[in-house]
Amino acid sequence: MPTNSLPADPAHRYFEDYPVGAVFDLGTFCFSEAEIIEFATRYDPQAMHIDREWAARGPLGGVIASGWHTIAGMMRLVADNFLPGNGLPSPGIDEVRWLLPVRPGDTLSVRATVTDARRSRSRPDRGLMTSHVEVLNASGNPVLTMKPMNFIRCRPAG
Amino acid sequence: MPTNSLPADPAHRYFEDYPVGAVFDLGTFCFSEAEIIEFATRYDPQAMHIDREWAARGPLGGVIASGWHTIAGMMRLVADNFLPGNGLPSPGIDEVRWLLPVRPGDTLSVRATVTDARRSRSRPDRGLMTSHVEVLNASGNPVLTMKPMNFIRCRPAG
Repeated sequence: MPTNSLPADPAHRYFEDYPVGAVFDLGTFCFSEAEIIEFATRYDPQAMHIDREWAARGPLGGVIASGWHTIAGMMRLVADNFLPGNGLPSPGIDEVRWLLPVRPGDTLSVRATVTDARRSRSRPDRGLMTSHVEVLNASGNPVLTMKPMNFIRCRPAG
Repeated sequence: MPTNSLPADPAHRYFEDYPVGAVFDLGTFCFSEAEIIEFATRYDPQAMHIDREWAARGPLGGVIASGWHTIAGMMRLVADNFLPGNGLPSPGIDEVRWLLPVRPGDTLSVRATVTDARRSRSRPDRGLMTSHVEVLNASGNPVLTMKPMNFIRCRPAG
């Protein structure tokens, strides 16, 4: 698959830079066990995320990251390397799928493919971009996929 | 709408406790401006979430919470007050919708309605529960809605 590139300065990215079919590799992230437990203790305190001993006895063999933590790690790369820096709020996301558990030390890469891009009729200063975002493990298998929608400002005329 | 209750101890909650149509009020949460900026600085560093001065000049009049932060606040109440404590990983979520901006000091309440519950044929020790989760502001308007799926263990026989 081709990999496209965006203007390096996020403030110079516009709707026109996200054509349908463009694929963007956004980088990698990795969580330590301590980070997994810290995030989940605060936001998602289920035993599989925070209880080392309980998780070690179960089928997963140890704690796994909260699915929302995996998304937060992905979002950091989406914010840094994909969306414009001066963006607009997103209306939503479809089909969030957690496909494989994320464990401490897993190196995860993030890839975004633009699947739809349509200029707004009612607000011609922006367009709605839909993408397919995949978080892949070191073997290239998806651990998380989703279909976000984002409003992106159009490049100013002149 | 009726409000149901779950066994107080999360370890005693089973699939059978989540009948279709049951409505659960899960409590409230609220973010300070400092918390909004802290979460977003780490996971979603877009100007609308972390740059007080930029945000104050824009149409929103100040920083708004990352949509993922709002979900994290919701998830804490879902983990504490809705799901069993010894749960199974979720396969995914459909139709995440951010409907209104969340600002510092907003008191948000979380409500979950069971919309589907079917026992697994291939793994009869569990069922798949689908719910509609709403995060409401003090005026009762939804700021966030989503449709999570969760596998829940069935009550052991005897």
